[in-house]
Amino acid sequence: MSAEPSRPTMIDVAKRAGVGLGTVSRVVNGGAGVRAETASRVHAAIEALGFQRNEVARALRPGKKSASLALVIGDLTNPFYATIAKASLEVAAQSGFAVVLGSVDEDPEGEKRAIRELVGRQVAGLMIVPDQGDHSFLAGAGVPVVFLDRPAHGIEADIVMVDNEGGGRLATEHLLGQGHQRIAILLAPSYYTTGRRLRGYRRAHRTAGLTVDESLVVQLPEGTTEAAEKATGELMDRPSPPTAIFASTNFVAEGVLRALRLVADQPAVVGFDDFRMADMLPTPVTVVASDTEELGRTAATLLLGRAAGTNTRPPQRIILPCALIPRGSGERPPFS
Amino acid sequence: MSAEPSRPTMIDVAKRAGVGLGTVSRVVNGGAGVRAETASRVHAAIEALGFQRNEVARALRPGKKSASLALVIGDLTNPFYATIAKASLEVAAQSGFAVVLGSVDEDPEGEKRAIRELVGRQVAGLMIVPDQGDHSFLAGAGVPVVFLDRPAHGIEADIVMVDNEGGGRLATEHLLGQGHQRIAILLAPSYYTTGRRLRGYRRAHRTAGLTVDESLVVQLPEGTTEAAEKATGELMDRPSPPTAIFASTNFVAEGVLRALRLVADQPAVVGFDDFRMADMLPTPVTVVASDTEELGRTAATLLLGRAAGTNTRPPQRIILPCALIPRGSGERPPFS
Repeated sequence: MSAEPSRPTMIDVAKRAGVGLGTVSRVVNGGAGVRAETASRVHAAIEALGFQRNEVARALRPGKKSASLALVIGDLTNPFYATIAKASLEVAAQSGFAVVLGSVDEDPEGEKRAIRELVGRQVAGLMIVPDQGDHSFLAGAGVPVVFLDRPAHGIEADIVMVDNEGGGRLATEHLLGQGHQRIAILLAPSYYTTGRRLRGYRRAHRTAGLTVDESLVVQLPEGTTEAAEKATGELMDRPSPPTAIFASTNFVAEGVLRALRLVADQPAVVGFDDFRMADMLPTPVTVVASDTEELGRTAATLLLGRAAGTNTRPPQRIILPCALIPRGSGERPPFS
Repeated sequence: MSAEPSRPTMIDVAKRAGVGLGTVSRVVNGGAGVRAETASRVHAAIEALGFQRNEVARALRPGKKSASLALVIGDLTNPFYATIAKASLEVAAQSGFAVVLGSVDEDPEGEKRAIRELVGRQVAGLMIVPDQGDHSFLAGAGVPVVFLDRPAHGIEADIVMVDNEGGGRLATEHLLGQGHQRIAILLAPSYYTTGRRLRGYRRAHRTAGLTVDESLVVQLPEGTTEAAEKATGELMDRPSPPTAIFASTNFVAEGVLRALRLVADQPAVVGFDDFRMADMLPTPVTVVASDTEELGRTAATLLLGRAAGTNTRPPQRIILPCALIPRGSGERPPFS
């Protein structure tokens, strides 16, 4: 492949047919306003050069975007994001759309840059797991946007999310139901999802007539397994440790479980979002989870409808339900 | 976003400046052969319309591809593929390249279709985890190609792989070294990688002066966890079961471990490719693994060099080493 043969472009077609680029563009895109004799010269040149159906030609058509959707998402090695990517890719492919990926690792400036880049590539629409900050710059981008997992500020657009507050309530009620009264919550620093899960945790306490011990609401400095492991070790070393832990994400749950390998009195644990091997661990892990594939599929389907102009309804807010999957760790009774 | 403002295109610029599309293209791409007065009209129109740096303009430049790389890869929920995607994305982004994803789930026809689609999108290069079959159709595509994880037939191109045979030998030698003589190998149906791992398994036996019992070479009907779980159950139900199992992929290892939860005499297990939670299972899992991130990074770096024309060497074959990570399951002695 080192001596790369140059691929014919529309400019080669124009030269060969002895016409301007604008004429080629008109012929490729339907031939309006082009004399039949000229059009047939262009078609002959296209055939001679082995010119294929070409996205660039499509992009030249006034008002037409390329057949690509962009997906702006966090760390792909987080199975939650990988599942969204896979599911949205499958839906897009069924409609002949490719997906351009922007991975942004939770950095507002990087996200903005990635989005501008993608808009510059003439994508037909954007799926974004938004970082915090203002997204009003998207309003003028001229492409439809669907937000996933979290809402964004400064722009009205479709949103597909899970019921974070309901899931948080479910997890906490489950632990309260096993007789736990000292339930810690470990929060990854997300401006939205884990905040809602905390609301559910508080609501469950309130409904049960209990006051939350604020020393058990632990804000992690970052959402990593390592940070959760360290915080859990410190939590369980306290004179009066919690008898149950609600881990607000899958990575946090992993950190909690790693720390608990060194702990004598095992607290009950409920995670948020399911993960591979959760049922294979020494004590299988109880989680609250939603259908992550459905999240990706729904977002892609919505976006394709917006891009095609078949969906012209006002922006929608779709909330997918959460369910509790009891496996063992969340059913441990309180130690004394 | 329902009342979508139409984004200015080069056609709008051409209309406003009162010139042809070809003139706009020439101005955007350097202005050669355009009168200064005309060029300044075009620039004024560009400014008035808030026209941004635009990938379509780039694509119009003769011989220039868009600043996108394509990645054609299997199931993103397989952490091996997700890690490759993430690493190659990061390297591409550092050079201002986006990555267009094609996910193909091990289907040669789907792969061919996806590749043709991506080539039609004027990507600057292709990274492909190739399926079996002839890839000579890529030779005329006019874009550089780098293959990952497996070689392809019918085309000379860069390849970045892991040392599958060496890894297979390492796993088998490790088990032989613990005194195992009846070592089963469970093979996911890949035409290349697991075949090489089997070669390493055979070589280790030969070096140790042992004959392979062919009844212990198990070809799975598919590479799923479910298929591996079923085959392992049947294997351990035999009158003379193996005392050790070499699982040829991460999904196969998971299936083996699931089946072994119901087995009294626990065989030793070594997997190929590391996976999240491997060290957290009741018996932590010994694996042979390579640096999957390095695989993705190397492929993207090679491809960027080819796309930029800075790397004009003959096609390279880069083989990354494997290492054994002993954790417990591979160090079990033979049961009697």
